Amino acid sequence: MNTSEERSAGADDWTVAVNGWDPEKVTHHGNLFLLGNGCMGYRGTLEEFGPDEKVGILIPGLYDRVGDAWREPVNAPNALFTRIAINGKWLNPLDIKPDAHQQSLDLRTATHRRLTRFTVDGVRVLLSAERFLSADKVNLMAMQFVIEIQGQAEVTVETGIDQRIWDLNGPHLEGFSASQVDGTLLLESSTHEKGEPVAVAERALWQSKVPVGSETVDGSMRRWQFSADGSVSLALEKVATVHTSLDQHGVTDIDELACRELAVASEAGYKKLHAAHREVWEQRWNRADITIDGDREGQNALRYSIYQLLSAAPFHSEHLSIPARALSGQVYKGAIFWDTEIFMLPFFLATFPEVARNLVRYRIHTLDGAKEKAREYGHVGAFYPWEGQEGGFDACTLFNVTDVFTHRPMRTYFRDKQIHISGDVAWAVWRYVQVTGDHVLLWSGGFEVMLECARFFLSWAYRTSDDKHFVLLDVTGPDEYHERVNNNAYTNYLVRHCVRAMLEAARIMAESDPEKFSELASALGFNDAERDCLQDFADRLHLPQPNPRNGIIEQFDGYFQLEDCSLDQLKGRIIDPNEYLGGGSGLATTTCILKQADTVLATFLFDDIFSPAQKEANWNFYEPRTEHGSSLSACVYSLVATEIGKPDFAYEYFLKTATIDLHGNSKQHVGTLYIGGTHPAANGGAWMVAVLGFAGLNLLPDQVRFRPRLPSQWNGLCFSFCWQGLLASVSIDNDVIEVHADPTNSSPIPCAFDGTLQHCQPGQVLSLPFV
Amino acid sequence: MNTSEERSAGADDWTVAVNGWDPEKVTHHGNLFLLGNGCMGYRGTLEEFGPDEKVGILIPGLYDRVGDAWREPVNAPNALFTRIAINGKWLNPLDIKPDAHQQSLDLRTATHRRLTRFTVDGVRVLLSAERFLSADKVNLMAMQFVIEIQGQAEVTVETGIDQRIWDLNGPHLEGFSASQVDGTLLLESSTHEKGEPVAVAERALWQSKVPVGSETVDGSMRRWQFSADGSVSLALEKVATVHTSLDQHGVTDIDELACRELAVASEAGYKKLHAAHREVWEQRWNRADITIDGDREGQNALRYSIYQLLSAAPFHSEHLSIPARALSGQVYKGAIFWDTEIFMLPFFLATFPEVARNLVRYRIHTLDGAKEKAREYGHVGAFYPWEGQEGGFDACTLFNVTDVFTHRPMRTYFRDKQIHISGDVAWAVWRYVQVTGDHVLLWSGGFEVMLECARFFLSWAYRTSDDKHFVLLDVTGPDEYHERVNNNAYTNYLVRHCVRAMLEAARIMAESDPEKFSELASALGFNDAERDCLQDFADRLHLPQPNPRNGIIEQFDGYFQLEDCSLDQLKGRIIDPNEYLGGGSGLATTTCILKQADTVLATFLFDDIFSPAQKEANWNFYEPRTEHGSSLSACVYSLVATEIGKPDFAYEYFLKTATIDLHGNSKQHVGTLYIGGTHPAANGGAWMVAVLGFAGLNLLPDQVRFRPRLPSQWNGLCFSFCWQGLLASVSIDNDVIEVHADPTNSSPIPCAFDGTLQHCQPGQVLSLPFV
Repeated sequence: MNTSEERSAGADDWTVAVNGWDPEKVTHHGNLFLLGNGCMGYRGTLEEFGPDEKVGILIPGLYDRVGDAWREPVNAPNALFTRIAINGKWLNPLDIKPDAHQQSLDLRTATHRRLTRFTVDGVRVLLSAERFLSADKVNLMAMQFVIEIQGQAEVTVETGIDQRIWDLNGPHLEGFSASQVDGTLLLESSTHEKGEPVAVAERALWQSKVPVGSETVDGSMRRWQFSADGSVSLALEKVATVHTSLDQHGVTDIDELACRELAVASEAGYKKLHAAHREVWEQRWNRADITIDGDREGQNALRYSIYQLLSAAPFHSEHLSIPARALSGQVYKGAIFWDTEIFMLPFFLATFPEVARNLVRYRIHTLDGAKEKAREYGHVGAFYPWEGQEGGFDACTLFNVTDVFTHRPMRTYFRDKQIHISGDVAWAVWRYVQVTGDHVLLWSGGFEVMLECARFFLSWAYRTSDDKHFVLLDVTGPDEYHERVNNNAYTNYLVRHCVRAMLEAARIMAESDPEKFSELASALGFNDAERDCLQDFADRLHLPQPNPRNGIIEQFDGYFQLEDCSLDQLKGRIIDPNEYLGGGSGLATTTCILKQADTVLATFLFDDIFSPAQKEANWNFYEPRTEHGSSLSACVYSLVATEIGKPDFAYEYFLKTATIDLHGNSKQHVGTLYIGGTHPAANGGAWMVAVLGFAGLNLLPDQVRFRPRLPSQWNGLCFSFCWQGLLASVSIDNDVIEVHADPTNSSPIPCAFDGTLQHCQPGQVLSLPFV
Repeated sequence: MNTSEERSAGADDWTVAVNGWDPEKVTHHGNLFLLGNGCMGYRGTLEEFGPDEKVGILIPGLYDRVGDAWREPVNAPNALFTRIAINGKWLNPLDIKPDAHQQSLDLRTATHRRLTRFTVDGVRVLLSAERFLSADKVNLMAMQFVIEIQGQAEVTVETGIDQRIWDLNGPHLEGFSASQVDGTLLLESSTHEKGEPVAVAERALWQSKVPVGSETVDGSMRRWQFSADGSVSLALEKVATVHTSLDQHGVTDIDELACRELAVASEAGYKKLHAAHREVWEQRWNRADITIDGDREGQNALRYSIYQLLSAAPFHSEHLSIPARALSGQVYKGAIFWDTEIFMLPFFLATFPEVARNLVRYRIHTLDGAKEKAREYGHVGAFYPWEGQEGGFDACTLFNVTDVFTHRPMRTYFRDKQIHISGDVAWAVWRYVQVTGDHVLLWSGGFEVMLECARFFLSWAYRTSDDKHFVLLDVTGPDEYHERVNNNAYTNYLVRHCVRAMLEAARIMAESDPEKFSELASALGFNDAERDCLQDFADRLHLPQPNPRNGIIEQFDGYFQLEDCSLDQLKGRIIDPNEYLGGGSGLATTTCILKQADTVLATFLFDDIFSPAQKEANWNFYEPRTEHGSSLSACVYSLVATEIGKPDFAYEYFLKTATIDLHGNSKQHVGTLYIGGTHPAANGGAWMVAVLGFAGLNLLPDQVRFRPRLPSQWNGLCFSFCWQGLLASVSIDNDVIEVHADPTNSSPIPCAFDGTLQHCQPGQVLSLPFV
């Protein structure tokens, strides 16, 4: 066989698979074959792997800190660890070159499979394993492991709960205590910083008769030893539960909880558990899948992107959100960034509004942390974190990058100056309300978040000395290569939008229930004077205007005075490939080169403010000056490119975005910092480009607008969406848009296309032919 | 003899001299033995030296730029160049180790002398030379050169105008054209950038009979060759004039001017020229000298400091000021910094108000440049330059330091953010008016400068969003290690002072001549509305207050949040001895370590605002955190130390300041930039510590206050001062202050001491005994 590794799409576009063994790809495959169920992530490593191969069972939301190192989420002990020795030689492709190796991820069922063939001392061994993290019971994981031996050998099988844990800044778990009751292994431990309990319970059951031999248990590991002769086939099933203090919900003993859930699960057995899991994923795909006619690469990449989003999503909890590297590891401290609101929320809004609601409510639940951060900086209101951890605590350090030349910590202002994050959060609240029509959220914290963000912005603002305008000074926009700038266009437009949206929310709420709103306003200390004050702020906030001559908006005050070098020129100046281009003295800081879409993101988000010509002008100006140093960048340029008649560019950047985790060739280091992992914001961006860009779906508060502009590579596109509690599926080809309203819909969907509005009745199909 | 070089004070404390030869000290001696007359500087190099030894005849105020290099003042060709060869071997201590070498500067007469003995081929040669830049005729220089030979030798003497010029960023002069008429050598040239003419005319006259030999002239160089036998003594006198477009004053042909002045001068001859020069210096010393009883080192250093100030001062022109490295070279672009106003002006105000007037009027003449700079940054009013060149043009580049690690230009904000410079200028105008009583200056541009500075500050300011305060954001104070800060205490206090002083000036002027003021105000567009607006600005300007608990004022918003490491800790982190501690990512930027006195300078300048306890608290807090990376720092801490009862510290820092150019051990590099030369701000600082600090002289608008606090090293101190056009000399010992009012004074001087006020009548002596 060819041992050089090849990635190939599965026969049915539902599979991501590799054939062959390449030791260099172990880390990449850990990301590529990642399993997730919102509650846990399980990296795509092999069962015999350990910490050196970055085995990681991430528990999002359970954070820990050791000493002065970064706070990050905890990895659980690996309850699926299993390894085989032949004549004392442990089978591991890193030590023994395999005859064959295949690894795959079944996207439809979120199932990981591996198959590896070894020859040791003339004995042929085939290992095949299948595992999943249950989408049905989110604390549960299960595995089937089959060993086939041909030849005469002394065989050792070891399986249990591996206490060796890969941590970036650990060790986070301590006080390990293993016990065994009735075939269940239980490993208890607790986190270093706060002593939060982590319990892992595991059962392993042979599905076939085990040859006579010895069984020993050592701590949390079992071992069988026996002699094989001829052809032996053995099947092992493992079921495990992982519980932490996040699952306590009033339960005092999570060990008991882990064991109890495990007992129920193992009684059901692997097949039933997997069936229940598959059932959940089938429902998810029914809602979220997109089919593309004519582009197999794009199809596979887009489906993979959607898989990543569904795996990471907290379907089960409104106390979690999606970290910047999803559940693929501890990179970026497992923290919640604005990535979620601006790049992932649109997908969930259109597919699973209940997840969108969880994501928004996560920000409501963490308002206190945002208020505390505002206080810390001498402001009122809510300053949402750059890197949110539990309670809204900002885990971002002031020195977040290491200088590659001096090896000194570099002062960055990610934490201090990115006030747009509060805007992104408030934008998300309002967007959720507008698309879902769910005003309940406003009453239960949504309005409070919007108000506190508005208060924060006013508190941050200054008036010009002639008192004509309000300005927002000393901020950092999405383009982090230019820190501490004045009047960042993205930020200012966003702030005005958010303050106005808050005032609009107040008006709607006061109108719908004056008495209740009066109570709420009073509880929040919100009165007419403050309303007028915020209205005045929004009305007089300085907005960098498109230049009347060429339509270009200056990214921030003085941007046009910076050196206008080309990206190639800039790259030609780089001395160290990992040097950070921003910070105090990075190469980009004194030039017009930006890290990622900034002003152009504003023209996308505030679509109705800018003319097509202005959008095009800004795109044309900023795109060549963008380094795309963030995975959040390409999709934005792609989205706007679909609007301004640049389908080739849009398609190229769509593919770049959609394949980022498939190819695994994104930036791996900033300074000396490892930043690898999966990219859920890019995954969300890929979805946005397909549905909001190419299909041109626009979920307005009062109607659904279509403006398809499929790339030449695509013949058609089918997808579904939710809007105001109504469901529909859409198919677009080069002649017609067909909207199929779900028969259970309670009302028609007003569909706008090409200047006309038509209503799609429940259960009906609306055809909107292209002229 | 001992060839290791030793610096020794002359027998009478009026001489700075070295005995012995040390080639390592050539650059230092170029500064140490510097001659100056305000119109020219002549570095303390030997007559046979050339560009490699940094011969420099600086023309302050005549700037030139070559290509993209820094603009800097021009060095003239060296008209005193003279060298001797014995048997074809040129005598130069760098090539032929001398038997003896002495070099000295007579401070009393501003005369440079050298004496060097060589032995070549058994022939003994003694070279002795004396030279001066005329303080009487500022375009004139003259030299006596004596050659004594014992032995038999072929002798060559070469003298003329050396066209080889030392430039940091040259060559600035081009198109050299030499001519000879009636024994006068004339070398014409012009500057590269603007073609400004530079003419040097020279005559050399043998005072003794020259042995028979040949005389040849080649371009601007003469050569004599002859044979010597036995004992030969030859004396040569040289007189030269240097004229540039700065001297044109309507004259179209500066060559003619140079020759005409030279003809008159050479007719008079060296002795008369030197006598006239000495006469001027005698008058200067009569006014400016300070005698210290009991401290010979301090005496010599202080006198040397005063010598430096007098040499650099533009007695002859109100279109020049004093560059940061005086007339010692092109370092810091020969530009005018705030050093002049805050650190040198006090000396001239108290000794030569006519020079103080020239310095202030220089800023009036360069108002247009300051207005243009304000415009450039989108403001109104006047933004005075960090590095002022002709017309008030700011020569400061945006990338002013080179990073020692990456060798990349480093973005600094010296030019953009040091708004305090406009404050320093306005402060100087008002201080001049208050100390001299010269209100004419206000009418002839002084008020306009103050108004335009106030306008600039208001234009720079913002209001807080609640409209309670004005703030000054994004500025750099004197501590350049912390750029782009908000509400720098020094800046804010200074700005309030300047705006209030401007309003006070307006009030006084309107009162004294309402009609004329109304005309002026109208011409300047100043009306009651603007007055009220500026009054409101001054009244509501946020001033960082002393902490009520400990009296400490925060240097700027957020300073107390910086890492409070010790200076030693910081220094321990330095990797490269020349690395810049400020800029985008310098070591000091994220710590409390400051470059130089900043807040403490505010407590000195605005003496009456802060209590002694507050001054002490700030001194105690900031001094240990000051790196003293600027020569402007030690004197400020010394000054305040005299006030708060720390005489030992004050004396130590006085000596450090006063000896900076004597020892020549100040910082020589920032990044890769050479910053050596003389330090007139420190020279002025030394004077301030002696007179304003130790003697406690305070020239208030309505009285002269004394508060002596002599250091224990001093038994007494004598000095003179001018105030409101009145003259007095003062002697202080441990028992009594005696004030001798000049008999020509037109009115008594009100002298305040120890809470009582007494008037010192013209010609009388007022004794103020210590209780």
